Amino acid sequence: MRYIDEAMIEKIALGAAVLGTGGGGDPYIGKLMAKAAIKKYGPVPLITLEELQDDHLVVPVSGMGAPTVLLEKIPSEWEITAPMEALEKEMGRKVDVVMPIEIGGINSLYPIVAAAKKRLPMLDADAMGRAFPEAQMVSFYLAGYEPKTVAMADEKGNTVLLQPKDGIWAERLARAVTIEMGGSASVSDYCLWGHEIKGTVIPCTLTLAEKIGGFLLDNKGNAALGIQKMLNELNGYRLFDGKIVDIERRLSGGFTRGNAIFEGIRNDQGKTFSVYFQNEHLIAKEGEQLLCSTPDLIAVLDAETGFPITTERMRYGSRVTVVAFPCHEKWRTPKGIETTGPRYFGYDYEYKALEDLQRERTACID
Amino acid sequence: MRYIDEAMIEKIALGAAVLGTGGGGDPYIGKLMAKAAIKKYGPVPLITLEELQDDHLVVPVSGMGAPTVLLEKIPSEWEITAPMEALEKEMGRKVDVVMPIEIGGINSLYPIVAAAKKRLPMLDADAMGRAFPEAQMVSFYLAGYEPKTVAMADEKGNTVLLQPKDGIWAERLARAVTIEMGGSASVSDYCLWGHEIKGTVIPCTLTLAEKIGGFLLDNKGNAALGIQKMLNELNGYRLFDGKIVDIERRLSGGFTRGNAIFEGIRNDQGKTFSVYFQNEHLIAKEGEQLLCSTPDLIAVLDAETGFPITTERMRYGSRVTVVAFPCHEKWRTPKGIETTGPRYFGYDYEYKALEDLQRERTACID
Repeated sequence: MRYIDEAMIEKIALGAAVLGTGGGGDPYIGKLMAKAAIKKYGPVPLITLEELQDDHLVVPVSGMGAPTVLLEKIPSEWEITAPMEALEKEMGRKVDVVMPIEIGGINSLYPIVAAAKKRLPMLDADAMGRAFPEAQMVSFYLAGYEPKTVAMADEKGNTVLLQPKDGIWAERLARAVTIEMGGSASVSDYCLWGHEIKGTVIPCTLTLAEKIGGFLLDNKGNAALGIQKMLNELNGYRLFDGKIVDIERRLSGGFTRGNAIFEGIRNDQGKTFSVYFQNEHLIAKEGEQLLCSTPDLIAVLDAETGFPITTERMRYGSRVTVVAFPCHEKWRTPKGIETTGPRYFGYDYEYKALEDLQRERTACID
Repeated sequence: MRYIDEAMIEKIALGAAVLGTGGGGDPYIGKLMAKAAIKKYGPVPLITLEELQDDHLVVPVSGMGAPTVLLEKIPSEWEITAPMEALEKEMGRKVDVVMPIEIGGINSLYPIVAAAKKRLPMLDADAMGRAFPEAQMVSFYLAGYEPKTVAMADEKGNTVLLQPKDGIWAERLARAVTIEMGGSASVSDYCLWGHEIKGTVIPCTLTLAEKIGGFLLDNKGNAALGIQKMLNELNGYRLFDGKIVDIERRLSGGFTRGNAIFEGIRNDQGKTFSVYFQNEHLIAKEGEQLLCSTPDLIAVLDAETGFPITTERMRYGSRVTVVAFPCHEKWRTPKGIETTGPRYFGYDYEYKALEDLQRERTACID
């Protein structure tokens, strides 16, 4: 067992922003909140799946809504633990372990605040291995678990308990409540026992985020090296180097949706690229040719520093390196692709694994 | 103590449609449901406020949403009692008495289904003395009570528990959930003790609805007489006789909103009238002159039968008699007018009591 301290939070925030594929909320606010919580309540134990007991009650803690809203609507400390406390009341039992629902942006740091405040350990795992925009896009759903009770709260003091018919209705009702709450909310759902968690979650993702964050931080002066180490660790690919020449971003249905157009720079001069997002990056293209699609991971990195840029921080003129990584194998199953593949998001592409798309691309060039 | 039987349901349905001021949902469906429930589970005891014990737990049962939707989206039996059962679980105690939240259309009959199924008595009172479109427009709110927990369910099997900051947030969140549930939902909130209920509710309104329904049913061949008896009972006024020449109705924000234009007939020939509604009738005008405004009651009656016509059943060409009654005195307090007066609904009128408006009108004519 290790402890999450301030230095680790710095790395996790950076690495989780890479794995968050542009979404999961700006990690800056989450970082400040997590550090403040640790200062106030002490370091949080980080336990592995092996250390998790079968009869431990595990609760994921996360924020829901449009990341654009989270930039200005800061969650309160009460709001972050209120859903968990509502679940405890509902179950008539205390929670033993906190975990992140996704390893992306603010949502990898948000649960640290809850764990610190409740003096509980945090599990080194999540339910996506990245960030996804909708509530049913979790490995629990793939494994056939229902969210049972979804607990929500906002900074105004409202609490909501949903007992939805299934995961899809959980998403629909929770999204409607989130929008009414002002575009963001705190959520705890999929409250499961240790023996249910094992085999269902994506393991060691906080440690992975920490490692990636470390590569970038340790090579701040040499972004190319930091990025290369990261690509090696994640079996990833450099998709292109570009400059943002157009960016469209709108709030719609409780999400930040839009797309960015890039003019190639360096070796990619003369080419045009695009990235489409719904909170998270979903599609990367060169002209009309698909380079990578959800559920594989796309990250937009600052060309200067190698640091990830979230969808709501992308700006006209930014020079970036866009990279991609294969998703966890759970997402490449038929149910995984049905739940998070390009067609689910309304893009008319058959899902093709990033490695295959890259092989085709290289073949084309040859 | 009396028992609610099928004959009484027939009268309550008709009288409640008058007091429902065009809203509260079409009573026809509620009538069928209440009769079926009584056939299945037996008659429901109707108790007076005097018979209510101080330590009885009372729960209002109602449907929320646009009446237009309820015409096609019939509530299930499970849906009607699910919110109440969620509250029982929350409070760790069984409910003793069921009551209607409003005495209007389907919502005066809906709780009969719940009472029959749970074999509980029903209270002869409601929290409006009419129907109103929004959740905070209840005498509980005027008396300073908060809804605490709002329990909701739909016919698909979804349950939602809201613990809102206050009555306004209860309405906002419940409305958002109702819309997502498909435009209608079952609701139980303001779960209160007998001693809190006394003095807070509008008493004897089921008996009143029964009486009014009786006047109309017993004088089916002589609508004028039935209407006159009703006006005497309710200290009401005939506003005008007219023919609907234009009707605009739309679903917006989970409500049925719109207005109807009437050409005067009989003694009102040559004049033009209008009625504006949001689920319920809110404003009646002759030309630009205000005849009656919320919270006073406006009812549109079929000129042939004297039977009330709900907002969603108004049709081009219908010949109608429009009548109005003073609301309960609780609504004429400053907080009552602030909560349900014309300005709340966006109409630029100072509230004036129906009696005063009618006195001015008569003076004008003289």
